[in-house]
Amino acid sequence: MKKISVKSPANIAFIKYWGQRDNKLILPYNDSFSMNLSGCTTRIEIETTDDPSLRKLYIREYKSTDFRESEGKTLDMIIKFADTAKRFLGKRRSPGFIIRSENTFPKKAGIASSASFFSALALGFSRMYESEPEEKELSILARLSGSGSACRSIPDGFVWWQKGTGSSSSYAYSLAPPAYWDLRDVVLILSREEKKVGSQEGHQSAITSNLYKERLYGLKKRMRLIRRAFENKEFSLFGRLVEADTVSMHSVMMTQNHGLFYWSGKTLDVIREILALRQKGTEGYFSIDAGENVHVICRGKDEGRIAGYFKTHPAVIDIIRNSPSVGARIIHT
Amino acid sequence: MKKISVKSPANIAFIKYWGQRDNKLILPYNDSFSMNLSGCTTRIEIETTDDPSLRKLYIREYKSTDFRESEGKTLDMIIKFADTAKRFLGKRRSPGFIIRSENTFPKKAGIASSASFFSALALGFSRMYESEPEEKELSILARLSGSGSACRSIPDGFVWWQKGTGSSSSYAYSLAPPAYWDLRDVVLILSREEKKVGSQEGHQSAITSNLYKERLYGLKKRMRLIRRAFENKEFSLFGRLVEADTVSMHSVMMTQNHGLFYWSGKTLDVIREILALRQKGTEGYFSIDAGENVHVICRGKDEGRIAGYFKTHPAVIDIIRNSPSVGARIIHT
Repeated sequence: MKKISVKSPANIAFIKYWGQRDNKLILPYNDSFSMNLSGCTTRIEIETTDDPSLRKLYIREYKSTDFRESEGKTLDMIIKFADTAKRFLGKRRSPGFIIRSENTFPKKAGIASSASFFSALALGFSRMYESEPEEKELSILARLSGSGSACRSIPDGFVWWQKGTGSSSSYAYSLAPPAYWDLRDVVLILSREEKKVGSQEGHQSAITSNLYKERLYGLKKRMRLIRRAFENKEFSLFGRLVEADTVSMHSVMMTQNHGLFYWSGKTLDVIREILALRQKGTEGYFSIDAGENVHVICRGKDEGRIAGYFKTHPAVIDIIRNSPSVGARIIHT
Repeated sequence: MKKISVKSPANIAFIKYWGQRDNKLILPYNDSFSMNLSGCTTRIEIETTDDPSLRKLYIREYKSTDFRESEGKTLDMIIKFADTAKRFLGKRRSPGFIIRSENTFPKKAGIASSASFFSALALGFSRMYESEPEEKELSILARLSGSGSACRSIPDGFVWWQKGTGSSSSYAYSLAPPAYWDLRDVVLILSREEKKVGSQEGHQSAITSNLYKERLYGLKKRMRLIRRAFENKEFSLFGRLVEADTVSMHSVMMTQNHGLFYWSGKTLDVIREILALRQKGTEGYFSIDAGENVHVICRGKDEGRIAGYFKTHPAVIDIIRNSPSVGARIIHT
């Protein structure tokens, strides 16, 4: 019996991942680019047991005081992932495990909670199997969890996920450490409701959108431009591209089978405020994942003003301030 | 002194016009495709006078009882257009005129009120100058009014506006008469507020969107597909393409300079209802112009059910039901 503790960040994608060309291997249609979030992390503790049939999950919800046992879909995914990790790491036997997980942020609300959780689990399971894979391998393993964007929470800071030509070349690597650029992500929580359609389901029908091919076409140029804006730290161009990519992804979501509209009236209100603030010289850019909450990407110098401004906004129920963060880490206690 | 009466429809575009490659000649970047609306019409009366300096405009607003004199921007545009029409039709002298205009629908709310008004004016001014240009020439003249989509309200029924290579080849023509296809446009009025940014201003900065080029790229295929769906009356495919084009245009609007967000929370609510109705077998597709109101494109057999459903919806303050309509017509009284 041993205990492994891992902490891993969620990440916000500047170039989004939406759509899978292979839903078994979780291979995306396009590269994506993200920043790990210092204020949105998952901490898990894995306690191994000698009884391989004992596999339990306890979750402490955001702002809750106690751990509750979780069964059903998430536990099934974990059990499957333990098996995937075993084979991936070339092991034969699997111990039993009890996992305790807690988040610093609400889950299933468009803040990649599955990314922080499954990246933590990828690292935790590796240690459980007494393996120390290289970062690249760990990123591939995290991807295979089913939550593709988990692979971006493994490396540090600013991270690029190359789509690759197959499983062994589809992984994420760090473009720059957290200290490279003083970016911030001020997350405006508008709702704690869980979204109705999970990302996994949405990824699979992305291709049914009549706008999907034009998104892929546009991405070629946008990826080139954002890499250059990142290298030169041209924030205004960078921000414009971040917004364009968000709108592009949502335009696909809205027009794919069963049209996914994640935005609410509050989302629109908050976006308008971000644009109005910009007109007045406080430069923030919106980014939205598969949920109604809004991320405001800004520089350190404007973080306080933006967070302060939205603190009293009627649509905003909570604010999480993030700096660029390292990736998944073992916590030595 | 004489009196000329003209009635002309607004139109709803299935493939939208957004962005001008020439803002003097009002030349668009892409072809567009629309249907004239039987229930959204402008009626104007032009009374000519011998005093060329007398140029007045009286407007009776939607659901108002009396005509009020209108000055400022709209009158300036009309005076300029009278001059454009004079030169276009090869005339030397211009009479004075008093124009009375009335709409069957709210203006500046994303129902092409400028299209019905300026197409009516193009026909009315032609008669004022004692000219009877061919439909093609009249369409070009309507385009030159400044409201480009007015050119689509000249021909009958289902109308294609070819972008052309220059002013003389950029005009609209009828693809099919109103009776060709039993389509309906159920307009859900969510607000009578006038929009803050006019279309003209928006058209000119469309190109600043990082998504504009990918829209143009996608349009090539979408135009081919929608032509074929129209020819074969494949309604489901047709509707999907209509929605895709709406979302594509709005994604450009949202990401162009000063980001135009025309949608409101009510717009999103109503869109979700349209999708939910579709799941239950009542097939309507949304289309949205530069405003928050929502057009539901459906077939005659579903019009009653859709209009009935939204009649009691809290976000909907009025409903206008439209069939395909003829274009601009002189009214003989």
